[in-house]
Amino acid sequence: MMTSDRQPGANGPVVTAPVVTATVGRERLRRLFAPRSVAIIGASDRSSWSHRIRAALVNVGYDGEIFYVNPRGGTAHGAVLHRSVGEIGQVPDLVYVMTAANASLTAISEAAQLGTKSAIILSSGFAETGPEGLAAQERIANVARRHDMAILGPNTLGFANPAQRVVLMPMQAGEELTAGAIGVVSQSGNMAVQVMNMARAFDVGLSLLASTGNELNVTATDVLDYLVADEATRVIAVFLEAVTNPPAFRAACQRARQAGKPVVVLKVGRSEAGARAALAHTGALVGDDAIVSAVLAASGVIRVDSMEDLLTTADAFVRSGPIGGRNLAVVTISGGACDLAADSADSLGLRYPPFGAATLDRLREILPAYATPQNPLDATGAAVADAPLFGAALAAVAADPAVDVTVAIGEIEHHAPDSAWGLDSITAMTAAARQAPRPVIFANTTIHTITAGARTVRHDLDVPSVFGGMDRVLAAVARIADWSAGTTLPPARLTLPTVVPRPRQLPPDLAQPRTGTWSEVATRSLLEYGGVPVVSAILARSPEEAATAAESFGTSVVVKIVSPDLMHKTEAGGVVLNRSGRAEVIEAARRVLAAATAQVPPARTDGVLVSPMRPDGHDLLVGVVRDPDWGPVLAVAMGGIWAEVLKDVSRVALPCSPDAIEAAVRALRCAPILLGARGLPGANMARLVDVIAAFADLAVSLGEDLRAIEMNPLRVTADRIEALDATVQWTG
Amino acid sequence: MMTSDRQPGANGPVVTAPVVTATVGRERLRRLFAPRSVAIIGASDRSSWSHRIRAALVNVGYDGEIFYVNPRGGTAHGAVLHRSVGEIGQVPDLVYVMTAANASLTAISEAAQLGTKSAIILSSGFAETGPEGLAAQERIANVARRHDMAILGPNTLGFANPAQRVVLMPMQAGEELTAGAIGVVSQSGNMAVQVMNMARAFDVGLSLLASTGNELNVTATDVLDYLVADEATRVIAVFLEAVTNPPAFRAACQRARQAGKPVVVLKVGRSEAGARAALAHTGALVGDDAIVSAVLAASGVIRVDSMEDLLTTADAFVRSGPIGGRNLAVVTISGGACDLAADSADSLGLRYPPFGAATLDRLREILPAYATPQNPLDATGAAVADAPLFGAALAAVAADPAVDVTVAIGEIEHHAPDSAWGLDSITAMTAAARQAPRPVIFANTTIHTITAGARTVRHDLDVPSVFGGMDRVLAAVARIADWSAGTTLPPARLTLPTVVPRPRQLPPDLAQPRTGTWSEVATRSLLEYGGVPVVSAILARSPEEAATAAESFGTSVVVKIVSPDLMHKTEAGGVVLNRSGRAEVIEAARRVLAAATAQVPPARTDGVLVSPMRPDGHDLLVGVVRDPDWGPVLAVAMGGIWAEVLKDVSRVALPCSPDAIEAAVRALRCAPILLGARGLPGANMARLVDVIAAFADLAVSLGEDLRAIEMNPLRVTADRIEALDATVQWTG
Repeated sequence: MMTSDRQPGANGPVVTAPVVTATVGRERLRRLFAPRSVAIIGASDRSSWSHRIRAALVNVGYDGEIFYVNPRGGTAHGAVLHRSVGEIGQVPDLVYVMTAANASLTAISEAAQLGTKSAIILSSGFAETGPEGLAAQERIANVARRHDMAILGPNTLGFANPAQRVVLMPMQAGEELTAGAIGVVSQSGNMAVQVMNMARAFDVGLSLLASTGNELNVTATDVLDYLVADEATRVIAVFLEAVTNPPAFRAACQRARQAGKPVVVLKVGRSEAGARAALAHTGALVGDDAIVSAVLAASGVIRVDSMEDLLTTADAFVRSGPIGGRNLAVVTISGGACDLAADSADSLGLRYPPFGAATLDRLREILPAYATPQNPLDATGAAVADAPLFGAALAAVAADPAVDVTVAIGEIEHHAPDSAWGLDSITAMTAAARQAPRPVIFANTTIHTITAGARTVRHDLDVPSVFGGMDRVLAAVARIADWSAGTTLPPARLTLPTVVPRPRQLPPDLAQPRTGTWSEVATRSLLEYGGVPVVSAILARSPEEAATAAESFGTSVVVKIVSPDLMHKTEAGGVVLNRSGRAEVIEAARRVLAAATAQVPPARTDGVLVSPMRPDGHDLLVGVVRDPDWGPVLAVAMGGIWAEVLKDVSRVALPCSPDAIEAAVRALRCAPILLGARGLPGANMARLVDVIAAFADLAVSLGEDLRAIEMNPLRVTADRIEALDATVQWTG
Repeated sequence: MMTSDRQPGANGPVVTAPVVTATVGRERLRRLFAPRSVAIIGASDRSSWSHRIRAALVNVGYDGEIFYVNPRGGTAHGAVLHRSVGEIGQVPDLVYVMTAANASLTAISEAAQLGTKSAIILSSGFAETGPEGLAAQERIANVARRHDMAILGPNTLGFANPAQRVVLMPMQAGEELTAGAIGVVSQSGNMAVQVMNMARAFDVGLSLLASTGNELNVTATDVLDYLVADEATRVIAVFLEAVTNPPAFRAACQRARQAGKPVVVLKVGRSEAGARAALAHTGALVGDDAIVSAVLAASGVIRVDSMEDLLTTADAFVRSGPIGGRNLAVVTISGGACDLAADSADSLGLRYPPFGAATLDRLREILPAYATPQNPLDATGAAVADAPLFGAALAAVAADPAVDVTVAIGEIEHHAPDSAWGLDSITAMTAAARQAPRPVIFANTTIHTITAGARTVRHDLDVPSVFGGMDRVLAAVARIADWSAGTTLPPARLTLPTVVPRPRQLPPDLAQPRTGTWSEVATRSLLEYGGVPVVSAILARSPEEAATAAESFGTSVVVKIVSPDLMHKTEAGGVVLNRSGRAEVIEAARRVLAAATAQVPPARTDGVLVSPMRPDGHDLLVGVVRDPDWGPVLAVAMGGIWAEVLKDVSRVALPCSPDAIEAAVRALRCAPILLGARGLPGANMARLVDVIAAFADLAVSLGEDLRAIEMNPLRVTADRIEALDATVQWTG
């Protein structure tokens, strides 16, 4: 059974602090993303990639030097081709490699030896194709390590840095890419292109857009960390496929949070098969994606499910900044938009506070008599004829102390100089937004492009209009309000401890090997040692001892088999409930022992466990699964049949504060029942949080040996909370 | 108490068949939407509306005659202004009125007298502004009625009919509006403009776009009905604020269904305060919006929550037609898109069937060795270099018999003649889609505009690409699969009876006035008459009679007060559970009688009701609320505390088939518990459906007198289903 070569027992494991060092530092990345000269290796008039990269650089107005390299020589793009980087005659800051995979090593090696510190490898055919490709990639990685070179890719599309006029990413013809405050990093090249497409079509400003591809040595976490320090970046959008170093990623998210920059993440892989943890119930409740979700939540990350939501949320934050609460006001000139806004708030958890008396008075002055001054507000079509009206209404609404954030819904393109509703109105609206005491943003009613004239107006006036249409913008507002609430929580709730408390010494009777699954008896000892209340129990070696034990409790009892071989006691007939009197207890003990013997092969038995019957109450399933990459996650669920049917479960990454545990309990759909709905007796929340916190602390203290530990059920009544059964499973 | 002047009792109400006549017929609308000549009334060089309407007509290539009318005379748009419609010298097919509200009557009257049969009134200032405006609108309605004139508006933005080159709706500069197969009607002018904006920006073809505004006599239902018959229209998109004639709307939806045209509806007003029905529990479970939802579902309508989803769903249907099931295949060249597609399917209820052996063999031939032939499929970047590859992979996947619908995800703009991945690939893909045995559609990965070149290619090849980005397109596929399943259901489940069965005669003892709320005793009789099983009960006039009644049951009993004044018996102390023996029953009866007397003012009592205690089981709340506009809706919910906490409720518009009732029960989240999860005894579904169907039939037979009727609880055990308590409330 013992498969681990670690010495279990008395010394306990030492939990190390998360690794926080990024693979490639910020300074190296600063050079990568702002090269003063670029060599395009594999340049050719016959390659559309070559044309497009060159066009991207030229179109953005890159003012550094561009060299073209191709071993075949000749010319390309009207320039003489150098046969190698060495032939250029000077050392390029960056080499952009689009030769075949096998030629890339030569090019990178040569550049590295010359002193080039940055490279992009567009080429695919590396780790993503199998072992040979991986080996080729490793060879390049060795060169990079030796020469301290930062390499984006391979299998990347490069990056765009519009503020510094460097685009090393193929671009279609179309609108310009504008500089802004959203930093984007994507592990997928195609998803980086999607961001570029949307940003250009809808005029969303980016500070940086980078795709990391195979992450030879520049990882998404490195770029995230770089963006935390980047002054132009106010919010970070991330597309993730797999995180190579979760602790470093968590640490970078933590730094982003401290810097006041939200990290918006689209993480794919929800549907990947099954959970790694095998423990029956907690494993089913905490799949791989649930672990990632819990950790991302604990890292203060905003998680979204679509590329559109990724960009809209980031864009909204650039315009809104932190939002102080969920009290929303909407101002529009369309009854239809008002109705849509009203309908969507509830499911987003946003509220429309009624306007205060001062706001109502002011609105009555401003609006036509037939308008109804209420939230959301339809300022009516009268605003189209009366240019300052909308801005005045907006100012009145945004000044209402009950309003945390105001969204003006309408079409920015209607405010072009040649439109019915002209420049005066957008000027008044923008001024109102700027002077408002709390955030005001503008959203188009639906998603669509705007006219060139409107685009110019939007830039000239710096109109705070957000990409995506009201459907996505209102959802973004809700997410930002959530994130902002997190930043103002007491530190205990916000901060992930960087050093996990050193675990207690386990007493000698718990020094059995940490392998496989422990019996209920051993698990009970572990919980008791951790200060977790467990129902009384006596281990009896014979039916007669069981009867004597039952008498000592003076109530009816539960009789359970104790066997290292039976994980599912109930299903195996190893549990008999509610027995009283010697005769009944002896019969029950014989029955559970017989059930063990009847297994094929017969289960080993260590006796029977006798516990007092407890009155009915609410049963919770409380478990911790430790993911090898992401660490321990606590799951709290309604127990028994309800857990299975309702899938009513909350998850929290550990370690966490008692506040976070309370929030997890309250987040259960069944929480009102647990806490006493309709006058029924409810659980003592403070006591429940204490018990779960003791359990969570114990789980964390078990370190990396722990695979999963669970109490099922944790019986909760008005006056008592205790584990009736428990299991622990070890990685060894 | 008697407030109704109807004669209640023995004759019972006669339920009439829904009114199915549209206000304005299809022929009238055909003329409205295709005028051969148009007079613009209020034309002026100083009016931007005037400019924009004229530009819209000219830009779309309208080839009918345009007349300009303004009482002030002079010129506009380079033409001489007629001072009145009469001065034109011929009768225009349509007058477009944009004069002030009070001048509109004159213009309409004059045109009507001349024989003009169609009008659009852009002007606002009518019913939406209050009683005076409503009166002005009524005066015009009278003219319309007298002259059989179809009037769109007032307070509308008009319509666009791109196929017949008539646009009478103000348009911004920008892309062309293309003709297609989506018919759109919106009660909101602004939402019609949103559809136009999206359709132009993303090249979505429309057959008609009409906004009905105040619906003076052309209603959204009329236009819906017109679109059902319109040959160019294959799918109908509707934005609704309030339906004026629900039965006519339902009938039009029914006809659309028969014609095989999905009706996609965005109905606002979810958040409107409260339910009209006052009955405590059912009323809370069936709010106004839930009623509309249930009726829309029964009408075979696809309901969506955003304008983007409205248009994407319609656009997807134009390209896919009916979809035979929820088995989806996705083909893309991006691992990121694959992951996103995989992640979203589960929550949409879509499945990725594994490919069959033949498909796998074929894919292995086509794809590079490092590709993994699985669903969703990443055909890898190799497809970019090898133009026919993607089309071949698409053909292989779409031919798999396990696949109901295939979505190819990628960027249409990458297939323009000048792109790396050129015209050959899109030609191969389109051919594959056309030859596939089941629907194949294309979606951009995210939403963004396409280049002019790609737009041309898309038109020339008639590429089946759908607007909206994969996030919305996959959701649309799920909706269409749902809708398609509905059309293939047996008629009993699909068809709304057009004639409701004539109600049975009520027996004399149920002939008490149908007003207010009936006592439990009367409601019990009503249920029994309807064939609904009700727990046994004896009405006792004194505590001693109650004790004798209890003896006759031979079990412990429930004692309840019978009073017309106490709707909430339990809260008032009028219910005592689980009493046995004369002494206990007498005490209980005295207690509930005393509780009634203790009310302020004292409640009238008709005695106490004695029933046998029933064993624990699952309690359902089953109720019917009758909405004055939309008719009766059945609600089935988990009873008691779970109903309140989980809000676990299903709703069905009545009348409906037993299949629909079974589907409603199975749709409860708690259904697995009710039906016996984990080996616990479950309810007999057939019996449960019989009981609920009898209850629903009874409710329908009560006609318009019924406000609400509810069984709370309906106690469900493995061997018995019966109502333990019930209430009925009348409209009178």
